Amino acid sequence: VSDLYWPGDHRAGDVMSGEALVEAMVRVESAWLAALVDESVAPAEAATDLAELVGAADVEVLADRSEADGNPVTALLALLRSRLPRDSAATTWVHRGLTSQDVLDTALMLCLRDALDRVRRDLAAQVSLLSDLARAHRSTLMVGRTLTQHAVPFSFGRKAAVWLEGVLDAAEELERVAVDLPVQLGGAVATLAATSELARLAGRSDGPVVAMSVAADTARTLGLSARSPWQTVRAPLTTRADALVGCTDAWGRMANDVLTLSRPEIAELAESAGVGGGSSTMPNKRNPVLSVLIRRAALSAPSLGAQLHLAAAESLDERSDGAWHLEWATLRTLARRTVVAASQTTDLLSGLEVDSDQMQRNLDAALPSVLAERDSLHGLGGDTRAVGGAVGGGDRGPADYLGATDLLIDAALDRAARGGGGAG
Amino acid sequence: VSDLYWPGDHRAGDVMSGEALVEAMVRVESAWLAALVDESVAPAEAATDLAELVGAADVEVLADRSEADGNPVTALLALLRSRLPRDSAATTWVHRGLTSQDVLDTALMLCLRDALDRVRRDLAAQVSLLSDLARAHRSTLMVGRTLTQHAVPFSFGRKAAVWLEGVLDAAEELERVAVDLPVQLGGAVATLAATSELARLAGRSDGPVVAMSVAADTARTLGLSARSPWQTVRAPLTTRADALVGCTDAWGRMANDVLTLSRPEIAELAESAGVGGGSSTMPNKRNPVLSVLIRRAALSAPSLGAQLHLAAAESLDERSDGAWHLEWATLRTLARRTVVAASQTTDLLSGLEVDSDQMQRNLDAALPSVLAERDSLHGLGGDTRAVGGAVGGGDRGPADYLGATDLLIDAALDRAARGGGGAG
Amino acid sequence: VSDLYWPGDHRAGDVMSGEALVEAMVRVESAWLAALVDESVAPAEAATDLAELVGAADVEVLADRSEADGNPVTALLALLRSRLPRDSAATTWVHRGLTSQDVLDTALMLCLRDALDRVRRDLAAQVSLLSDLARAHRSTLMVGRTLTQHAVPFSFGRKAAVWLEGVLDAAEELERVAVDLPVQLGGAVATLAATSELARLAGRSDGPVVAMSVAADTARTLGLSARSPWQTVRAPLTTRADALVGCTDAWGRMANDVLTLSRPEIAELAESAGVGGGSSTMPNKRNPVLSVLIRRAALSAPSLGAQLHLAAAESLDERSDGAWHLEWATLRTLARRTVVAASQTTDLLSGLEVDSDQMQRNLDAALPSVLAERDSLHGLGGDTRAVGGAVGGGDRGPADYLGATDLLIDAALDRAARGGGGAG
Amino acid sequence: VSDLYWPGDHRAGDVMSGEALVEAMVRVESAWLAALVDESVAPAEAATDLAELVGAADVEVLADRSEADGNPVTALLALLRSRLPRDSAATTWVHRGLTSQDVLDTALMLCLRDALDRVRRDLAAQVSLLSDLARAHRSTLMVGRTLTQHAVPFSFGRKAAVWLEGVLDAAEELERVAVDLPVQLGGAVATLAATSELARLAGRSDGPVVAMSVAADTARTLGLSARSPWQTVRAPLTTRADALVGCTDAWGRMANDVLTLSRPEIAELAESAGVGGGSSTMPNKRNPVLSVLIRRAALSAPSLGAQLHLAAAESLDERSDGAWHLEWATLRTLARRTVVAASQTTDLLSGLEVDSDQMQRNLDAALPSVLAERDSLHGLGGDTRAVGGAVGGGDRGPADYLGATDLLIDAALDRAARGGGGAG
Repeated sequence: VSDLYWPGDHRAGDVMSGEALVEAMVRVESAWLAALVDESVAPAEAATDLAELVGAADVEVLADRSEADGNPVTALLALLRSRLPRDSAATTWVHRGLTSQDVLDTALMLCLRDALDRVRRDLAAQVSLLSDLARAHRSTLMVGRTLTQHAVPFSFGRKAAVWLEGVLDAAEELERVAVDLPVQLGGAVATLAATSELARLAGRSDGPVVAMSVAADTARTLGLSARSPWQTVRAPLTTRADALVGCTDAWGRMANDVLTLSRPEIAELAESAGVGGGSSTMPNKRNPVLSVLIRRAALSAPSLGAQLHLAAAESLDERSDGAWHLEWATLRTLARRTVVAASQTTDLLSGLEVDSDQMQRNLDAALPSVLAERDSLHGLGGDTRAVGGAVGGGDRGPADYLGATDLLIDAALDRAARGGGGAG
Repeated sequence: VSDLYWPGDHRAGDVMSGEALVEAMVRVESAWLAALVDESVAPAEAATDLAELVGAADVEVLADRSEADGNPVTALLALLRSRLPRDSAATTWVHRGLTSQDVLDTALMLCLRDALDRVRRDLAAQVSLLSDLARAHRSTLMVGRTLTQHAVPFSFGRKAAVWLEGVLDAAEELERVAVDLPVQLGGAVATLAATSELARLAGRSDGPVVAMSVAADTARTLGLSARSPWQTVRAPLTTRADALVGCTDAWGRMANDVLTLSRPEIAELAESAGVGGGSSTMPNKRNPVLSVLIRRAALSAPSLGAQLHLAAAESLDERSDGAWHLEWATLRTLARRTVVAASQTTDLLSGLEVDSDQMQRNLDAALPSVLAERDSLHGLGGDTRAVGGAVGGGDRGPADYLGATDLLIDAALDRAARGGGGAG
Repeated sequence: VSDLYWPGDHRAGDVMSGEALVEAMVRVESAWLAALVDESVAPAEAATDLAELVGAADVEVLADRSEADGNPVTALLALLRSRLPRDSAATTWVHRGLTSQDVLDTALMLCLRDALDRVRRDLAAQVSLLSDLARAHRSTLMVGRTLTQHAVPFSFGRKAAVWLEGVLDAAEELERVAVDLPVQLGGAVATLAATSELARLAGRSDGPVVAMSVAADTARTLGLSARSPWQTVRAPLTTRADALVGCTDAWGRMANDVLTLSRPEIAELAESAGVGGGSSTMPNKRNPVLSVLIRRAALSAPSLGAQLHLAAAESLDERSDGAWHLEWATLRTLARRTVVAASQTTDLLSGLEVDSDQMQRNLDAALPSVLAERDSLHGLGGDTRAVGGAVGGGDRGPADYLGATDLLIDAALDRAARGGGGAG
Repeated sequence: VSDLYWPGDHRAGDVMSGEALVEAMVRVESAWLAALVDESVAPAEAATDLAELVGAADVEVLADRSEADGNPVTALLALLRSRLPRDSAATTWVHRGLTSQDVLDTALMLCLRDALDRVRRDLAAQVSLLSDLARAHRSTLMVGRTLTQHAVPFSFGRKAAVWLEGVLDAAEELERVAVDLPVQLGGAVATLAATSELARLAGRSDGPVVAMSVAADTARTLGLSARSPWQTVRAPLTTRADALVGCTDAWGRMANDVLTLSRPEIAELAESAGVGGGSSTMPNKRNPVLSVLIRRAALSAPSLGAQLHLAAAESLDERSDGAWHLEWATLRTLARRTVVAASQTTDLLSGLEVDSDQMQRNLDAALPSVLAERDSLHGLGGDTRAVGGAVGGGDRGPADYLGATDLLIDAALDRAARGGGGAG
């Protein structure tokens, strides 16, 4: 169900929906059960695919019942067990050795991975679109602006390159954390005690080693990486949240420029016609809707990232008394908003209309003051080398005061072509 | 649909759900349309009850279409018009004079009022429950704790009174803002220009005065208060959000005490048995689930309040370019979480188990150091009046070192009985 | 010492400086000591004015020593005692009955009151300046803008009135909390036990009543209001913080408009010449520095307010284990930044340059689309009353499409003249 | 000057003080000036060491004058020029080619590097201390706690290893960002136009290449890395801020455990005696002051990190209109608080008192329910392998239900010995 309160939410589709979480939790229980069997901790007859037992239709009831235990896992287990054949060994063995945090944290990682993959694809598309813009508009002159005022000449290609560098920074951080998402598998206090005991009861000589193998098998099945349990060590979440916020930073930064430069008095950029932006009362309006919605997400994401850090900082005991519970909805909201904004930003860039003539007009209107810095350099002190004369060009214009713009654009394009290269 | 990621969310029921927002938007359009007719701006035949035309089944499609214009109002209007009789005058007159922000802001106020009313009822119940606790445990001795360590004697009745004062502070702020929620009715740039023009076209001599009357009529119909349009003046939202955060502050403060004092080694308080708190793997566990979930909400609310202030601070032009759009989901989330936590806190207090004997045991175990402050007062300097002797009581115990506890409990009870009295 | 990292900080002067806090703490100890003597709890010879004993030169050493006990009060007491005459009764009696939180919380209230008073004065000045602007520019036509795009005609007087309403909202909230700042006087666990015991030892028959009187006397001396101790009930702080954030919201909203409308391509507003805004390299630049710095504060304040709410929500026991300690610097920073922004906003408004001609030019350039909404109203449906003809004015222009602008300006001016009237 | 409002602030010494910022700005100007000379853009006689010209005594006046231009660079330049010999070529050449943001951003990077280095050293010490604790207490039994309640057996060595993993996560992120801090050198709109022009005027054939060399030279002199200008691309700041917040997360998480486990009723841990923790009124108190102060920092840091992300997201034009200005004090506060908390955490760990006997007593008191999970595993369903009998040990106790604790401790110690290894 899309969120009516967050226009564009439908773009996120099933990413971190209630259905997605239920499906992921079932996958975790299934993978763990299979690993118990594979390692001969549980009997062969316990092997069962749980996937079809619980689904979208159960989300509402699971949500309602999740309060009794503070999380949905117990309710999910009750449902699973009630739908297994009455004499199924799986009824006994499902979830054995796990604790609810294992199931939920690992399921969230599966869901988060989908979100990260969605964002990665959009970032790649944006790198390509921005590289094209930077190349195409290398020599498109415009006025550079600082603190809202005209400063010195600039080029739109350089602006696109600056945007590109922001996206590259974000993409590099995201690439780093989009891999090796870890399972969380430790049992009650993250010692794998129950699994070790079950292995012992099953006659295995080294219970703890078997328990570690069960965890490793499960990770492999799920395509996640093994790592020591992190029930109260939440960097696996916060580092990924930070990377997502880094993305909305980069997108918000571009949206702000589009919003400003598409003001009618400036009119250098415009969102693509035909993507909406109508008004409920003014037939004349064409609003920069995508930029508005991206900006909204960018204003919102930092506080969501901070909530996850706060939850991490408030970790306590061997499972936290509220901080952990704060994470789920926060991560969901951050992830969905980022996926939506990723897609909107790609659309924004792919349809962006650049009015080079208007850029030139605005620059012309800023003459001669936009060259005041340059002129102040001529005849510096008594230094004859700096005095105009033969060297200083009386008829040189804005196009000759772009400094290293070309080199800087090339550097950004090179970095993009290399697939990133560090935020410095 | 309850939120699986926020256990307890079902307690909020329909408060600020997608359905509730749609229903509220339709109510706003209906009330405005009726006022246009009543003031003879629109013809009598335009009078139409829109309530049945759009409903719960349309939420999803409205959510999906809301992105095109950045908000759901245009899509809602299209749906309404498509379902009106083909030749209905209402098709022409619905929404005339309004802008999308009018509809959405006013609808949100209607939704918010429901949330505030829910919270008020719970606060009243909590004041009653806490007053009972304070009275009942006036003489229940316990050890006072500061910075986690034993300090001096205390009573649980006084602790309940402190909790009560927190709830009274919150309730007084909430009462203040739970009334006079304003409509937002101004048209495109909040000048009522279109409505004034329509009144003029309808032959009314003073268009602006008529337009103001249409707005006032609409407010009356909706039970909201009139106020000048506040499209970019957002205190009507932020003051209410602040009051909601004040509530979760008070509840979180209590939940923290319950979480600490229900630790097995302390064991002075316990959540009511039978409300859940089970573990997915440990049959011995009885977790303080309500406190955990209340604490979660209290950790979360401040940042949601801050988001609404940020949106207010980022207001711009005659309608904001993203800040406004950030408000809706933020307000919804804050309101629902507060409603849920309100209800959970009432349950927590009504079922709270107080173990007076254990409080006494913990206090006894803290002797004699818990009276060290008192002893340090005896024989101060050379001041004979302060020397023990006849005045100081050798056998006086913790019960005699409670100072003004009774007076302070009475003061809190009086304040509760008076129905509050100012946060100071 | 002004903060180099926060340009404009010097405007806050001594508000909530280290010196101010030390001075306020000494005032609290002095007032309490005097009250002990007045109520015959301490002997007459203990009466001592502590004001000259500790001062600005001691701030650094107090800061350094404050860590040992987690707050500066114990170090302050050691310093006070070391500077009292060796045989002074005050050495024995200073601080008797208090706890460090009493001293610090009450001192912070004294400091905060100064900050609130500073802000109030600026708000009053701003109300006056904005009322003047609204009156003067009632008929100054400009284009109204929504979502960055031209919408329909507007007037700068109405914009000033909208700004005014934002300031009035903020001022009303601030007025409400700028009075009755409470003392915090309760002793170790807020029961006044030590003071009650001392009164008993001094032969007073009803120790608790005497202790309450000592607290009331102290409040009177300090000009603060009495209230039950609020050591872990922090609404007295959060409500005031929220009001301060409400102020920066209102100021940020205006600064955003100035920043946008002073862009060279729009050029409708400008900050006063001569207040700075130079560039370190571009002689042509005149930056809207005040608006930039106000905007900075407005972006920052919400998170500071949220920190204080978080501290409130994390209250625990009879004194909190870290949440309390988070408040001091947060409140100081919020208060100073608000005082600075208050003063900057007054300057901004008093020097604001309004270019009515340019507003007219921009409006003219927006014709005819800026009247598209109006034209869409003419000939609505088959409704003859709405058809132009005699009623619709072919030659009516933007000045005739201002709706209730005059009425709304008057309403704001009336509200200002009445000294506020509720945020609705 | 230490901050009286933030006990422990003196530990940060000069890190990001006003003096440090002034000194760093002068270093940037000096390095740039030298590079201009080295690249023959400026004449040899312009070479001047500016270091002694401005210093600590000037901070106050620079702070006061910084408001006029919105940042302290212009005021600094005025001061520098006024103190250079009247006919010094440096007067002409200092700052040529730079803009104020170049100087301030690069100076902040120099200051931040000092802070990061301080934190790195503490993290290394903590890794060592925690490794020792994990080794020493591998077999120190305690009760594991989840959601505040007793769960199953645990060992303090495993708890130390969990803490260690949190610190390793933080350290690895910090190591990653503690290197390659970039210069910001681009001139007015980050095109190096002025420097390129000056090079041209100096007769150099390829101005832009020379300008890039000047920037690279400056970076080398300062020990910073070259990177394309990032005036409105702020990942170089936000990634470092995120890493600092990751540190306080890890420290806060440990402080919370110490605060809980040092409660008198639990009494398993204690802060080192003799580091303070006294009360201003209660001679019996020994407060866990370091933990309290660390917790305070951990509650505060996330919102500071979020402020920097917000500033990044609000970037605009070629220099931002307020977002940039928000960064300085935010970064300073975050960096100092992190440095202080780093040092306090090292002290906390090095003096931590572990009461193994009390841990055993608390565990014993939790029997038999603390083994309820284990017992529930025996005789699972009809599976004979799981039935007790010969395999299940009737007399096996908590020490036999630690599962993979040893393996997990070893894994953490290995990771520490390898110098980290990825947050997963």
